[in-house]
Amino acid sequence: IAGAAAALAADDPLPSWNDGAAKASILAFVGKVTTAGSPDFVPAGERIATFDNDGTLWSEQPVYFQIAFAVDRLKVLAAVDPAIAGNETVKAVLSGDRAKLAAVGEKGLLEIVAMTHAGMSVADFEGIVRAWLATARHPRFDRPYNELVYQPMLELLAYLRANGFKTFIVSGGGIDFMRPWAPAAYGTPPEQIVGSSGRTKWQLVGDRPSIMKLPEVDFIDDGPGKPVGIERFIGRRPVFAAGNSDGDLEMLQWTTLDTGPRFALIVHHTDAVREWAYDRDSPVGRLDKALDEAAKRGWLVVDMKNDWKVIYPFEK
Amino acid sequence: IAGAAAALAADDPLPSWNDGAAKASILAFVGKVTTAGSPDFVPAGERIATFDNDGTLWSEQPVYFQIAFAVDRLKVLAAVDPAIAGNETVKAVLSGDRAKLAAVGEKGLLEIVAMTHAGMSVADFEGIVRAWLATARHPRFDRPYNELVYQPMLELLAYLRANGFKTFIVSGGGIDFMRPWAPAAYGTPPEQIVGSSGRTKWQLVGDRPSIMKLPEVDFIDDGPGKPVGIERFIGRRPVFAAGNSDGDLEMLQWTTLDTGPRFALIVHHTDAVREWAYDRDSPVGRLDKALDEAAKRGWLVVDMKNDWKVIYPFEK
Ligand SMILES: [Ca+2]
Ligand SMILES: [Ca+2]
Repeated sequence: IAGAAAALAADDPLPSWNDGAAKASILAFVGKVTTAGSPDFVPAGERIATFDNDGTLWSEQPVYFQIAFAVDRLKVLAAVDPAIAGNETVKAVLSGDRAKLAAVGEKGLLEIVAMTHAGMSVADFEGIVRAWLATARHPRFDRPYNELVYQPMLELLAYLRANGFKTFIVSGGGIDFMRPWAPAAYGTPPEQIVGSSGRTKWQLVGDRPSIMKLPEVDFIDDGPGKPVGIERFIGRRPVFAAGNSDGDLEMLQWTTLDTGPRFALIVHHTDAVREWAYDRDSPVGRLDKALDEAAKRGWLVVDMKNDWKVIYPFEK
Repeated sequence: IAGAAAALAADDPLPSWNDGAAKASILAFVGKVTTAGSPDFVPAGERIATFDNDGTLWSEQPVYFQIAFAVDRLKVLAAVDPAIAGNETVKAVLSGDRAKLAAVGEKGLLEIVAMTHAGMSVADFEGIVRAWLATARHPRFDRPYNELVYQPMLELLAYLRANGFKTFIVSGGGIDFMRPWAPAAYGTPPEQIVGSSGRTKWQLVGDRPSIMKLPEVDFIDDGPGKPVGIERFIGRRPVFAAGNSDGDLEMLQWTTLDTGPRFALIVHHTDAVREWAYDRDSPVGRLDKALDEAAKRGWLVVDMKNDWKVIYPFEK
């Protein structure tokens, strides 16, 4: 009997999910769309699944990890460049003073993005991101940021791919910030990562070509930008999508408001002990309108505290 | 012996290519990058191949087929809308008068693009393109435009995919114009098609979401825009690329000017009998700088007349 139980566990594609309605509904959906002859069958090529990143596949507290990257990068730059060290916006950001930070505003934010995310080639930027991940540590867990991915979601991604789904990341985060590490973390190749981006420019110096990052925002892959990005990059509607905040509302609508079998999932941050608990009032990852819409539309709301056995891979 | 020859022919992955240096160089390249242990081995996931479309995968004479689509569309619109029928730019385009056409200019062209490629959802536009393909006929061959694809290039696409390459279309043509038919024609899914695009906008009316096409150009995937588009959509450098004009120069440079095994191919239109013959002086698909660069860099220049047994699938 112990052997049989172990064999059953080994067959479980979602071992970090507690048995219950959430897990059952995922298994039932994948079962019906992959059963040939079922009225809900979806051909393998059309099984498109899109996943938000911050708060859906990895943590986003106490601040979005890309902001932690930008702040760390500013410190490096300020240490070697007096002009950056003396910049008022930079001083406000590095002060850690909440009142000063609140005064930075959108113009200041764009200034910071330009300083930290432009002026180099995409390849050089990717090197900077990799070096940061190798040294930076999350303040609460004292681990590299890319270890704070959600084990149950990794299993979900792998389970979908094993069932003929093509999985994409569709994130408000920067596309060039994600591509250096997300392929290894999630098993999605660079061409299946959609994100926000700045303008870039072709440059050829001698026989050395590069794509240079310019200090101008090109595309914000958030809110209504998510279905726009999905249409532009993927060119067809997902049948499965996962998010965690109001920034995913339109992606989940785009995924579900059509004929045929469709599935939307919201990761609800309910675990203040193992992760964080926040929703309607959080400045990071606010989940308000999409939570109401989930109830109205029958989207799955995953209760992290009760639906997940572990949060991170290192807990196993 | 006849049986052995037939078996050999059946094993030939490029049966519409004449034996010769061009075919041999393609086979040699694919052989070395797919041979485990070879110094030139490239892992399957990194075998990215990008193909221009107009003049590389299908014909582009006497005018780019998307222009034929736009002109046909203008006729439909002008027949039902007096404002469009009376528009001076539209009258110039529909007159077929070369002097009037030449005077249309860039502003006029954008006006035509706005009239024919915007003001509807992407899904509705795709329906218009499909309907056009089902009824329009190419003036010389009296066949649907999507039958004028190159049989030898279809074989090359299939051969690369059979050898673990991921094939992408990277075209100056419109992404929304290609996606309705290119997947069936070339075996590349919609998410592996990169092209020029207009701005789009999310719209939700009741429970009906759509992505609306706006009358503003967003991205021109031509010339230096090709490596920019490759970086944005694919996120890694191709090891194999094919084009036919100066609009592909930067894509071929981006593909080849790096370490490791790399392959660039130019389709040279040399067959005035079966297709068209044009290069340095052609207003459509001008091949001048890229032809010089091919000689300098050792890129393969395919001689359509001598390297290809047939041009189109219907000749077989
Ligand atoms: Ca999120
Ligand atoms: Ca071309």
